Amino acid sequence: MIQKPYLLFLGDAPDALAAKVAQGICDWNPDVALGQIRLPGCGADMGLPDMTLEQAKAAGVKTVVIGVANRGGIISDAWKEVLIQAIKMGFDLAAGLHTLLRNENDLISAARMYGPTLHDVRIPTVAYPIANGVRRTGKRCLAIGTDCSVGKMYTGMAMNAEMNGRGIKSTFRPTGQTGILITGGGVPLDAVIADFMAGSVEYLTPDNDPDHWDHIEGQGSLYHASFSGVTLALIHGGQPDAMVMCHEPTRSHMRGLPDYALPSLEQLRDTALPLAQIVNPACRITGVSINTKALDDKAARRLIDDTAAALNLPATDPYRFGAGPLVDALEGI
Amino acid sequence: MIQKPYLLFLGDAPDALAAKVAQGICDWNPDVALGQIRLPGCGADMGLPDMTLEQAKAAGVKTVVIGVANRGGIISDAWKEVLIQAIKMGFDLAAGLHTLLRNENDLISAARMYGPTLHDVRIPTVAYPIANGVRRTGKRCLAIGTDCSVGKMYTGMAMNAEMNGRGIKSTFRPTGQTGILITGGGVPLDAVIADFMAGSVEYLTPDNDPDHWDHIEGQGSLYHASFSGVTLALIHGGQPDAMVMCHEPTRSHMRGLPDYALPSLEQLRDTALPLAQIVNPACRITGVSINTKALDDKAARRLIDDTAAALNLPATDPYRFGAGPLVDALEGI
Repeated sequence: MIQKPYLLFLGDAPDALAAKVAQGICDWNPDVALGQIRLPGCGADMGLPDMTLEQAKAAGVKTVVIGVANRGGIISDAWKEVLIQAIKMGFDLAAGLHTLLRNENDLISAARMYGPTLHDVRIPTVAYPIANGVRRTGKRCLAIGTDCSVGKMYTGMAMNAEMNGRGIKSTFRPTGQTGILITGGGVPLDAVIADFMAGSVEYLTPDNDPDHWDHIEGQGSLYHASFSGVTLALIHGGQPDAMVMCHEPTRSHMRGLPDYALPSLEQLRDTALPLAQIVNPACRITGVSINTKALDDKAARRLIDDTAAALNLPATDPYRFGAGPLVDALEGI
Repeated sequence: MIQKPYLLFLGDAPDALAAKVAQGICDWNPDVALGQIRLPGCGADMGLPDMTLEQAKAAGVKTVVIGVANRGGIISDAWKEVLIQAIKMGFDLAAGLHTLLRNENDLISAARMYGPTLHDVRIPTVAYPIANGVRRTGKRCLAIGTDCSVGKMYTGMAMNAEMNGRGIKSTFRPTGQTGILITGGGVPLDAVIADFMAGSVEYLTPDNDPDHWDHIEGQGSLYHASFSGVTLALIHGGQPDAMVMCHEPTRSHMRGLPDYALPSLEQLRDTALPLAQIVNPACRITGVSINTKALDDKAARRLIDDTAAALNLPATDPYRFGAGPLVDALEGI
């Protein structure tokens, strides 16, 4: 687990998009970040207090989280100066960069000398077991998608927040780097070795109170030729009681696969449900989450209503209109 | 690729079962092994000439292949003596052991000093790409199973041998350690990182002549909670034109999962075919391979005939009765 609270390092991010990880942390776990630290030229602003490392130390920050992608895969000298200073002051570092902190000799040397931990959340640190398929106590909900990057993480986060607001026991269970940085822990599933994928999901979602919900972050899509195996491991390791289908309605082809059309929500339902029922015969599809970012309010509402009617399932855009209908549908399961 | 020909190291294998890898090599690629080397107490015999390392050198052997499992996961001193001598004499070593050759300091030191290569076929040595889903030329057949360890490798090997015998262009494409040691190359799929599984299968089965068949070794089962993700990556990376269903009729539950019943062949067909058609709409299920080892001849024949009639598909035990019907079914595809 990554120690909290955080200081968000925005580096020289030219805009908010480059600071996507920091944005996710502020959207979903705002209390965890006490401040931000920016370099000259930074065009991103999370609306947090700008802090020096000294101020962060005084405020009780434990970990400096790199909330920005590094350009060209290189950790620049300008970044290094701040990061090494942070290590010297005893802050842990956490990052989901392609360039690993642990591969940077100067960061490693400093960490060895001064003691802090470097968290590369892209890399598994646990020897996960092989899945045993045994039923676990507690309830689990998994977001599945017609494609990659359609809003599965946000759907799980929104449902978890809605449940927390209602006083229902629930936990978001991250399976990707952004989710791990937001919550402080999880499984970087895309980096797990094939034989241990399903086992890592079992490990992530252990026995729990009978009335507790895990919201498992989905990955990939059963229809995505590159990553479908990861998705099936999530379904079989997660043993969901409920699955929410996630969709982005304006996409013309599968992400990164120009020759592949997206499946319909009906196709996804008919493919995913029998596969989930292999490990949990009671599993149901309980709702649809539509990412309506590209639509105006009226078109978004209409699409949501039409989808709900066509599939006879609750539908919403949980980020835009709230996750209420998706959470309502889980009551009584 | 592992250099041929081989000398098979049987160590102190108490019986033939302990020398399963050597047996697979002798069954499916007998010309590749020029001899065997056995330690005192060895109860296994592949029927090959017993050779000293000197005799193997003179015969032209390039690689000493460890064809036996090591007891307790330890490479014993008795083994070491022979293996280090082999390295000094310039033989490469190849093994699929859980204990990696590369983790043994004395083997590594000897290899560095004398130059040979140590092949641990459990470990990927290639940086596989992410799958792109693009259609490839040539034909591909994938063995899928109702469970793990039901005869998928032997089915692919037998079909490949039958095609070679008929003068049809074909290649067996191993995805597991035994297959890799038998043929000298392949992808150790269960050890590949999640994001690259499907890409490694694309890499393994590239563009080929339009009338060439790849027989892709299957892994796991869509119905096996521990490994189903690996299976789906094989289906989506392999883009099979044909799938052969493999089954072992006497098993009472999924291998290693006492709470899980095996699916019927009809269930497997109805689950696997739509998933395969996502990447290759022309994919068909072309036959059934039944592992009848536990049955007498009459019962085996009856089960095969009944299965063929029930599914309206060619069926056989390719190891016992030949792969002819499975290969016949691929003509004209």
